[in-house]
Amino acid sequence: MKVVKGNIIFTPNKDEFKIIENGCIVIKDSNIVAVCDTIPENYSSYELFDYGDKLIIPGMNDLHCHAPQFRNVGIAMDKELIPWLNDYTFPEESKYESIEYGEKMYSRFIHEIYKNGTTRVATFATIHKESTKKLMDLFIQSGIGAYIGKVNMDRNSCNTLCENTLESINDTLDIIKEYSNKSNLVKPIITPRFVPTCSENLLESLGKLAVEYNLPVQSHLSENIGEIKWVKELHPDSKFYAQVYDKYKLFGDTPTLMAHCIHLTDEEIDLMSKKNVYAVHCPASNANLASGIMPLRKLLNNNVKLGFGSDVSGGHSFSIFKTMINAIEFSKLIWAQNNEYNFLSLSEAFYIATKSGGSFFGKVGSFEEGYNFDALVIDDSELNFDNYTLLERLERFVYLGDDRHIHNRYVNGSLI
Amino acid sequence: MKVVKGNIIFTPNKDEFKIIENGCIVIKDSNIVAVCDTIPENYSSYELFDYGDKLIIPGMNDLHCHAPQFRNVGIAMDKELIPWLNDYTFPEESKYESIEYGEKMYSRFIHEIYKNGTTRVATFATIHKESTKKLMDLFIQSGIGAYIGKVNMDRNSCNTLCENTLESINDTLDIIKEYSNKSNLVKPIITPRFVPTCSENLLESLGKLAVEYNLPVQSHLSENIGEIKWVKELHPDSKFYAQVYDKYKLFGDTPTLMAHCIHLTDEEIDLMSKKNVYAVHCPASNANLASGIMPLRKLLNNNVKLGFGSDVSGGHSFSIFKTMINAIEFSKLIWAQNNEYNFLSLSEAFYIATKSGGSFFGKVGSFEEGYNFDALVIDDSELNFDNYTLLERLERFVYLGDDRHIHNRYVNGSLI
Repeated sequence: MKVVKGNIIFTPNKDEFKIIENGCIVIKDSNIVAVCDTIPENYSSYELFDYGDKLIIPGMNDLHCHAPQFRNVGIAMDKELIPWLNDYTFPEESKYESIEYGEKMYSRFIHEIYKNGTTRVATFATIHKESTKKLMDLFIQSGIGAYIGKVNMDRNSCNTLCENTLESINDTLDIIKEYSNKSNLVKPIITPRFVPTCSENLLESLGKLAVEYNLPVQSHLSENIGEIKWVKELHPDSKFYAQVYDKYKLFGDTPTLMAHCIHLTDEEIDLMSKKNVYAVHCPASNANLASGIMPLRKLLNNNVKLGFGSDVSGGHSFSIFKTMINAIEFSKLIWAQNNEYNFLSLSEAFYIATKSGGSFFGKVGSFEEGYNFDALVIDDSELNFDNYTLLERLERFVYLGDDRHIHNRYVNGSLI
Repeated sequence: MKVVKGNIIFTPNKDEFKIIENGCIVIKDSNIVAVCDTIPENYSSYELFDYGDKLIIPGMNDLHCHAPQFRNVGIAMDKELIPWLNDYTFPEESKYESIEYGEKMYSRFIHEIYKNGTTRVATFATIHKESTKKLMDLFIQSGIGAYIGKVNMDRNSCNTLCENTLESINDTLDIIKEYSNKSNLVKPIITPRFVPTCSENLLESLGKLAVEYNLPVQSHLSENIGEIKWVKELHPDSKFYAQVYDKYKLFGDTPTLMAHCIHLTDEEIDLMSKKNVYAVHCPASNANLASGIMPLRKLLNNNVKLGFGSDVSGGHSFSIFKTMINAIEFSKLIWAQNNEYNFLSLSEAFYIATKSGGSFFGKVGSFEEGYNFDALVIDDSELNFDNYTLLERLERFVYLGDDRHIHNRYVNGSLI
């Protein structure tokens, strides 16, 4: 039981920041029990963590990334998607057959997640069961919350990454059994790589597993035009890409993350909205791989749930703050073209990064009663040299700050 | 006379990196006299600066920014251009009537330029003569190369920033006389803010000054649609925006920088090319202010000279490395839309940031015989944990690095 004190900033809804100057958050076990201007008398015996003039904001939620692409962050950026996959991504992922290699790189990966202020993450691993378990164990040690997916792919892949369908399912099931109750912060997630690399048998089995074990699902959707055509060729009966996932209960029958969602049909958007599927916006990756810009405002207007993803290593930065800036900038570039869709405000971007993205992990991402206390303590004194308002201080940290300004990180009530 | 040794990387042309592993650069006074694999015998008596496995690259050139907007970096990003100017930019620039305020903020500004590895900069100051002189003196102390423009504006401005035409010219002339020969690295540049804020008298006088004293010119061109319409209303006889500058000898009669250049006509592009006017690409600013994307490839294809600008505080980052990434990303977003213009490669972006942008300052931006030695020594050991190639190490530094990885900075042969 503790009280955390400082300048509290969060977004209870997308349109406004709630700012409590020199306020406090009362935490019992892992959850917030009160957020107030001054410490209430009945909590005065709680241990006090006084962060003075620092900012206290919710932790960042990264809803899409690829841990085994860690080594390739920031290289091969001149390549297009297919050579990038074949010459860089697949050879690298193949190395994770070695648990030792996995341990070495995954440790570095988690350190970057930690450094950049991400407190919850949903990540792809590789097809390899043992390395994936290692990644889960390392996350458990770190204290960061994570959904981790052993990747499933049994066709249209390179030799070293193509699974036998039955083995793919059995390995997935082993992980589910071993890890479903091992940690309350680190859990398995069903992870078909994307439609083209999964046979119908595999998709069907994965959907059944998701429903039977009530597990969330993550995959890719409509990242680029060639991919969409390919899905149509492989599944000529489907009306649109998402329908393939939906047919096999991999599209909102349990909580579902779909990364990219750039080129959606209106029917597809309706289905996402109806089935509460999260569209995960990965702007840096979408630019780096020349995929395009997700129509974020259109999805927001259609009540599609949203979150941000770093999409390392399609994206080159682990920082969800930088992802916010990319999302805002790209929405402004769309607006500049036709003035149809208002661009994203800072509070909207912050909301997507915190309360909206966090909702995938439970009551996460806001400072409200009953929420898990996931927080960052920001020391922006270097940036605050001229009496900026608290909101300006937050904005300057988002735009100018980096890991040097993150003083402390809390996940689920604990300092990590 | 010295020899600098390390892993040398630069772009003699836009299409390729020249990489010399463990090579050396021989410098006499401020200039490069040889670039080679091993130290030539006749230079063996020179003082050796051995940077071991570090990277040595040319310094960055920032061809457009606003020093007096330093305090406002990273705030008010939700505002559109006009409220941004009226509520934030103009009130802030008005404060520079005080030399004390100017000194305080300009010192911080120069420190950021330094920190981020920019070795030459062209910047706007304000209308105020004394603060502008202070900025020039501070730059002289810093060792960084700079063109600094006292801003001229005698109409369509707020009360506190609107000059009397004659005074505007006289103040400009005073600075020219005092600073033209004070330093070989810090020089005045003629700086009409942009067409709408300058009377025809003022433009005419500024053009005459530029030609008479052989001074370079910097201004803004075609940043957004409303601005272009406004110029047309103010100058109904002009065929296009640039023609107004051109009419008054402010468009390539002496070396000229034009920032933004987003919405150019084909005739305007021809004129830029013919008169060797630099188009300064400021992608972060153009996104932040929802202006659009400069058609960089089209300008490149038409032989328009190019450089990058941070455009602080329209842009939020001082790093020209981050500007490179923005430029590459935005060119990929254009490509994703219609596949008409190939996106920018890393070598092209690097070339624009170094040799192309540097050419505005003389023989600057490359490691070739006769060039001024402007360089950064990059310590990327933290990023280089897995035997990356030298080119991959450079790419990772550009995408993932920051000021922490810049070990040393040289301008014109001197360590600063």
